[in-house]
Amino acid sequence: MQLGAIYEPIKEDLVEVENQFRSVIDSERATFPGLYKMLSHALVGGKIIRPALTLLSGKFYNYNRGSLVPMATAVELMHTATLVHDDAIDKSDVRRWRPTVNKVWDEDKAILLGDYLFAKAGEFAAATRNLRVIKRFSQTLMTISSGELRQSFDAFSLEQTRQHYFQRISSKTASLFVLATESGAILSQAPEKSVKILKGYGYNLGIAFQIVDDILDFAGTEEEMGKPIGSDLIQGTLTLPAMLILERYPEDNPVKRLFQGRDKEKNIKLAIELVRNSSIVQECYQVAADYRTKACHDLNLLPDNATRQALVELADYIVTRKR
Amino acid sequence: MQLGAIYEPIKEDLVEVENQFRSVIDSERATFPGLYKMLSHALVGGKIIRPALTLLSGKFYNYNRGSLVPMATAVELMHTATLVHDDAIDKSDVRRWRPTVNKVWDEDKAILLGDYLFAKAGEFAAATRNLRVIKRFSQTLMTISSGELRQSFDAFSLEQTRQHYFQRISSKTASLFVLATESGAILSQAPEKSVKILKGYGYNLGIAFQIVDDILDFAGTEEEMGKPIGSDLIQGTLTLPAMLILERYPEDNPVKRLFQGRDKEKNIKLAIELVRNSSIVQECYQVAADYRTKACHDLNLLPDNATRQALVELADYIVTRKR
Repeated sequence: MQLGAIYEPIKEDLVEVENQFRSVIDSERATFPGLYKMLSHALVGGKIIRPALTLLSGKFYNYNRGSLVPMATAVELMHTATLVHDDAIDKSDVRRWRPTVNKVWDEDKAILLGDYLFAKAGEFAAATRNLRVIKRFSQTLMTISSGELRQSFDAFSLEQTRQHYFQRISSKTASLFVLATESGAILSQAPEKSVKILKGYGYNLGIAFQIVDDILDFAGTEEEMGKPIGSDLIQGTLTLPAMLILERYPEDNPVKRLFQGRDKEKNIKLAIELVRNSSIVQECYQVAADYRTKACHDLNLLPDNATRQALVELADYIVTRKR
Repeated sequence: MQLGAIYEPIKEDLVEVENQFRSVIDSERATFPGLYKMLSHALVGGKIIRPALTLLSGKFYNYNRGSLVPMATAVELMHTATLVHDDAIDKSDVRRWRPTVNKVWDEDKAILLGDYLFAKAGEFAAATRNLRVIKRFSQTLMTISSGELRQSFDAFSLEQTRQHYFQRISSKTASLFVLATESGAILSQAPEKSVKILKGYGYNLGIAFQIVDDILDFAGTEEEMGKPIGSDLIQGTLTLPAMLILERYPEDNPVKRLFQGRDKEKNIKLAIELVRNSSIVQECYQVAADYRTKACHDLNLLPDNATRQALVELADYIVTRKR
């Protein structure tokens, strides 16, 4: 199923979220053309899954457009800010089929644009006027940046277990999915039990999303992904497929050799081939599918409506996506 | 007058702010030792002028420790985050007599630590539970990062007027002084007229502070400043003293030659000598003193008490400081 069809129950307000991005961009057009160009470049082309999650999660109780649209905007702006910083840190050249902000401008300006976007996101979160959501917004940014920092400290370390992996992707990815669904629930005055259900859905969906992301970094194509393959290995980030290589061939394998600093390019190529030509891809997809199942299982306790169906379809999309 | 004496009316709550920093550091001790060490390194040694401004500004009406201490903490955390990012961007080696975060670790980890500190600052701002202050917090971070971005776009440009300079330092420095004083006023339920007065004080004080900072980057000593002299010129940042060189010697001068990329080290040295051995230092101090006067003039409309006296003394300290 295409994302457009899944987003059907909230399509009007997703357009409203995109109008907010437009207004963020246009607010700097006259006063600061350099920043205007940077914003125009950074704020296009995403899958807008996270704002969709906020709006969909707000559909079960008192749907409040006036606070849900700002929060959905805040969540996507925070996501964009983290991407801009990640690309600057990784010195990535390409994202979403286009040169990164740090490539078109430079890393210094990318850092400052990211800071600006965090602040803008905070302003949108504040516009909800909901103190609980505002607090969760800041806590989530703390969780994400500490997760990214953990990843940086653990780079090229072979002393990592699956527990490390799940802790890291929980912080750097699932936390924002949780914020997206939780804030939608809170802002629509969902009962606490339902807030918890939607948080659980967001968490499991986020973990599944990141596992698939990590699979695609081995098994995807640059054309479909819009960015180079093998970037995690280049950064020394040990993801689930790479961990399975280590588990299966404990004595000697290309990931181990790569992390020990030997023959970089050759071993990246070998590791990618090894994952593609083994059951590792399938095994990782199975782990993602289990999280998808957990995510959807939680939903059964919510009212059965078109939105609930959309959340199930979104979970299906996430574990079968090619980009 | 020493800062310690100026801070007398709020000394107990400044200790409380420092206890909050300690709790920020300690919260990561057991769970993430790497982050704990980074926080321990980053969160010491400042002049804590901005939190002092928040607390002092809160002293005129209903002093509310429960929200003023978190806000004072938020303001200093935001300041620290911007320093950590600035040093990473400028690739600075030394700050506050010690190696910078990017020097001890690396630039990538410094970016992520800065993000973490922004988030932590946001959490403290949210703890005030005051929506107006929370909104102003995010807006201020937007103003600061867009000011820093402007500085980055304008680097090594000779097409800058004093208007550009004042716009830039208003964004990157005075805005946070304004947040500090304004939030103190708002959180103590000051009448709008007094909020405006304290904002005006913060603005003029912030401008004076930055002008003195820019003077000291030419006329100070590394021993007193705790960081190298001439760093603005190295970054291609045109500050007031450098502008006066351009104005006085429009045909040819070391700043012009430096910005045109000629003989970097030699021209930095010549520019510093030129400022030190001319009336430029004095002229810049006079501009700072005028802003100090404006700042204090505004205060005359507030109740005359020990806190008002402290704000005047702080303004005097700021235009005479050597570090």
